[in-house]
Amino acid sequence: MAKSKFEYVRQFEVEDKCLPNCWIVVRVDGKGFHRFSEVHHFMKPNDDRSLKLMTKAADCVMEEFKDIILAYGQSDEYSFVFRRNTTVYNRRASKMMTNIASLFASSYVFYWPRYFGTQMMQYPPAFDARTVLYPTDKNLRDYLSWRQADCHINNLYNTCFWKLIEDKGLTPAQAQDRLKGTMSSDKNELLFSELNINYNHLPELYRKGTILIRDKDNQDLEKSLSSTGSSSSGSQGSYRVPSSRSRPNIISLNEDLIGDQFWENHPEILNPGKR
Amino acid sequence: MAKSKFEYVRQFEVEDKCLPNCWIVVRVDGKGFHRFSEVHHFMKPNDDRSLKLMTKAADCVMEEFKDIILAYGQSDEYSFVFRRNTTVYNRRASKMMTNIASLFASSYVFYWPRYFGTQMMQYPPAFDARTVLYPTDKNLRDYLSWRQADCHINNLYNTCFWKLIEDKGLTPAQAQDRLKGTMSSDKNELLFSELNINYNHLPELYRKGTILIRDKDNQDLEKSLSSTGSSSSGSQGSYRVPSSRSRPNIISLNEDLIGDQFWENHPEILNPGKR
Amino acid sequence: MAKSKFEYVRQFEVEDKCLPNCWIVVRVDGKGFHRFSEVHHFMKPNDDRSLKLMTKAADCVMEEFKDIILAYGQSDEYSFVFRRNTTVYNRRASKMMTNIASLFASSYVFYWPRYFGTQMMQYPPAFDARTVLYPTDKNLRDYLSWRQADCHINNLYNTCFWKLIEDKGLTPAQAQDRLKGTMSSDKNELLFSELNINYNHLPELYRKGTILIRDKDNQDLEKSLSSTGSSSSGSQGSYRVPSSRSRPNIISLNEDLIGDQFWENHPEILNPGKR
Amino acid sequence: MAKSKFEYVRQFEVEDKCLPNCWIVVRVDGKGFHRFSEVHHFMKPNDDRSLKLMTKAADCVMEEFKDIILAYGQSDEYSFVFRRNTTVYNRRASKMMTNIASLFASSYVFYWPRYFGTQMMQYPPAFDARTVLYPTDKNLRDYLSWRQADCHINNLYNTCFWKLIEDKGLTPAQAQDRLKGTMSSDKNELLFSELNINYNHLPELYRKGTILIRDKDNQDLEKSLSSTGSSSSGSQGSYRVPSSRSRPNIISLNEDLIGDQFWENHPEILNPGKR
Repeated sequence: MAKSKFEYVRQFEVEDKCLPNCWIVVRVDGKGFHRFSEVHHFMKPNDDRSLKLMTKAADCVMEEFKDIILAYGQSDEYSFVFRRNTTVYNRRASKMMTNIASLFASSYVFYWPRYFGTQMMQYPPAFDARTVLYPTDKNLRDYLSWRQADCHINNLYNTCFWKLIEDKGLTPAQAQDRLKGTMSSDKNELLFSELNINYNHLPELYRKGTILIRDKDNQDLEKSLSSTGSSSSGSQGSYRVPSSRSRPNIISLNEDLIGDQFWENHPEILNPGKR
Repeated sequence: MAKSKFEYVRQFEVEDKCLPNCWIVVRVDGKGFHRFSEVHHFMKPNDDRSLKLMTKAADCVMEEFKDIILAYGQSDEYSFVFRRNTTVYNRRASKMMTNIASLFASSYVFYWPRYFGTQMMQYPPAFDARTVLYPTDKNLRDYLSWRQADCHINNLYNTCFWKLIEDKGLTPAQAQDRLKGTMSSDKNELLFSELNINYNHLPELYRKGTILIRDKDNQDLEKSLSSTGSSSSGSQGSYRVPSSRSRPNIISLNEDLIGDQFWENHPEILNPGKR
Repeated sequence: MAKSKFEYVRQFEVEDKCLPNCWIVVRVDGKGFHRFSEVHHFMKPNDDRSLKLMTKAADCVMEEFKDIILAYGQSDEYSFVFRRNTTVYNRRASKMMTNIASLFASSYVFYWPRYFGTQMMQYPPAFDARTVLYPTDKNLRDYLSWRQADCHINNLYNTCFWKLIEDKGLTPAQAQDRLKGTMSSDKNELLFSELNINYNHLPELYRKGTILIRDKDNQDLEKSLSSTGSSSSGSQGSYRVPSSRSRPNIISLNEDLIGDQFWENHPEILNPGKR
Repeated sequence: MAKSKFEYVRQFEVEDKCLPNCWIVVRVDGKGFHRFSEVHHFMKPNDDRSLKLMTKAADCVMEEFKDIILAYGQSDEYSFVFRRNTTVYNRRASKMMTNIASLFASSYVFYWPRYFGTQMMQYPPAFDARTVLYPTDKNLRDYLSWRQADCHINNLYNTCFWKLIEDKGLTPAQAQDRLKGTMSSDKNELLFSELNINYNHLPELYRKGTILIRDKDNQDLEKSLSSTGSSSSGSQGSYRVPSSRSRPNIISLNEDLIGDQFWENHPEILNPGKR
């Protein structure tokens, strides 16, 4: 049983280290979630249970990977931003994206009952993931702005679409037709005058998506209590069963991140050493 | 809310298409499963429930990705072999490995109760994955032989190790010491004379691992009934809820694949068109 | 002058090893040779001096890189095929293609006077290069067939084009117009009936391009005389000043390589160990 | 002669686009120049003819690639820095490095007689090249500092080494022995007290290497005269025969670039738009 005779096949593995000194973003995306949401009767245009479950799964990922400094999620996707100089898994893109995609997916199934109660999951979902590098702070902010702008655009459309169906009795095809070629301002007006909705009064969860960041004060506390900090060791690290905590380590926000205000309020995100 | 202003960030995504005409292998590996197996009181050296759950998760992956022609699993890992000329996801390595890793992980959690009954899962597990290319049939067979030889070597060692602890009352350190520097023949002898075990009588599941292949006859039947065949379309394809079937599409074997016999029995694996 | 303080920048270099067990092809292509050929008054449609100089430059590359088993050239391009398991430069694609492109270019200038006599070169030419991997013998043969078919197609067109201009007095635009939409058979017919040329009687150099391979007998001789063979050592190897030889090591052929005959005559190319 | 039947082989070519918004550096390195310098009797430790020829070749490269904003050379190497957002060759690394390596090499041979007079070149030299990305201005400056520090360290050593041989009659082995373990200060002292050389009085060409940048004023002039600017078009561009000019477009400096002074004097290098 000569293992060594076959071991040469390891040489076919390719190293895929991320360029140093770049922001590393891993974005997880639900596969075929249109169908998954139908099978599981998600509320339209937004299902609070699913959005919260997504955020819970993202929270699990951030608990596991300490070098993730921010996560942003909306609809069936979540983006994870690693600090610029992380050495987790020696910056190997494959390792990072597969670990995150699989932990996200397993957490989604694991915590399903907490958000969907007695409604059974019909089949296990898949999530793809990709790793993208951004050389500058501006590029990173533009990436996150892109995702939040996408959230807004989709939510505005979907809100109109589903209200036209539910309140006005249109068919999906009719609703689609009604919205074709409309601008944001047209849709806002439609909501306001015909559908009796002030878009800006809708929950920010729907309009802005969810930002997860680490609680600065809690982090400092944690650091002073312990100095293990295994997450950025470059090795695989052991799997940590989350410890119980008196207050949360990770905080969730539903606010604008396109403007400067968010970044001025949280300067430590882009400059972790400069607090 | 100018989405277009930010959309340039998409250009930072990198294409990672696999070289054409190579065998594509995606191997999934449990992350930190030493700890996971302890927390969940897995039987040593082999836990039937976990092995069968792994195979169930692999089965879900094969049901979803029709271009996987063979899977091989042992311990906390599973390898998936795509046919040489698959065009699934345009052969993009990231897409393939993240979808598989996440579907494997979500299936592992989803089907946990079927194999572990009332024993609760304590926390959701992660699996990493890698994509490796093999240019020739020989390279592919050597890869699979490497994994099966690894299964044998580890199982022989672990069988000795745990028997020394359980039957002979050794501590883990003592058992490790006893086995240091031993050859395969020494371990076989140890099992036979001192621990009363004929290694070759142990279940093949433990000694050989598990091979999943598609049932030829059933495949032909399926093809004659339908001509949708969406899996190799190069597009993302819709998520398919498994249909009920009178007989299984995928068959599971626990046998040697290092020698020629297996490949002679299943010539369609390496030469799908030549049956 | 702390060099070490800056040395971290080396980590930004990316390894680009070629997948093992694949044929490695490096193709060199003249940059802007349309203009270069005009400035230097190349004969149309084929300039013997330039074709022979190209082959001389290719010969220099093969003298330097002993793991190149075959080269094929036509027009302003040359393809170099490394043996499947070469370890030259640890199979790093960048190293291979830049060394070849630069040695080809420097040789082209160096040997210019030998072929162009007293006609001065006006400016130094550039050549780009690319590295392409082919997993199977069939893929490699199809690659070379693609280049030789390209040679034929272009030569047939160019022969018609320039004869229409030179013999029939057409302008370039008129000649282009005359040839638009014609098939190979139409062009053959045009040459034969109107331009008095039997295409098949043209030199094979023009119709087939040039194949360079190593002289088997000479190679054996060389091996028996010396056992240095540094070219496949994986290290950079020292620069070797070509020794004088009584008979050439590399032979040049102008023949078909699309059919089987060439490969049957030279089985050692695809199977170097099996002679 | 079905070209299309073979054309599928193009799909095996891999795209290697550089990450957007990074500084792109292509470094050219002489292959086996130790031997080349011996065969051609280069002066030790520095040969003015070769250094100037290297700079002439670099100048040719900068004339051809207008998006190169700075080049730095020393010994048998030259680094070319493209502006951050160049789109030359669609940022394909292979295209960039092979074109540069080959044009550098052909120019080196082409202009040899201008610097070496009647001394014949014995054989054509090769140069390898690599493409490296730097995300930030600091990383780029550190890269260039690394190369200039390397120039200094080697020059200090080589000056001592050759003076010990020439003036003190030591053998190479003895000279090497004498210098083993010495610090920079030791070498300066050795030169000053024993070899009668004040290192700081040696030509800056030897101690600092050569920086090539574009003449700002001339560039503006050029822009006002013409608006072709084809070099950064993303397409391959035509080969331009250098036009005659009344004053040089590219200027050569032998000065420190590790400190801030150089960058303050030439702010347009890092911020091309901000002049």
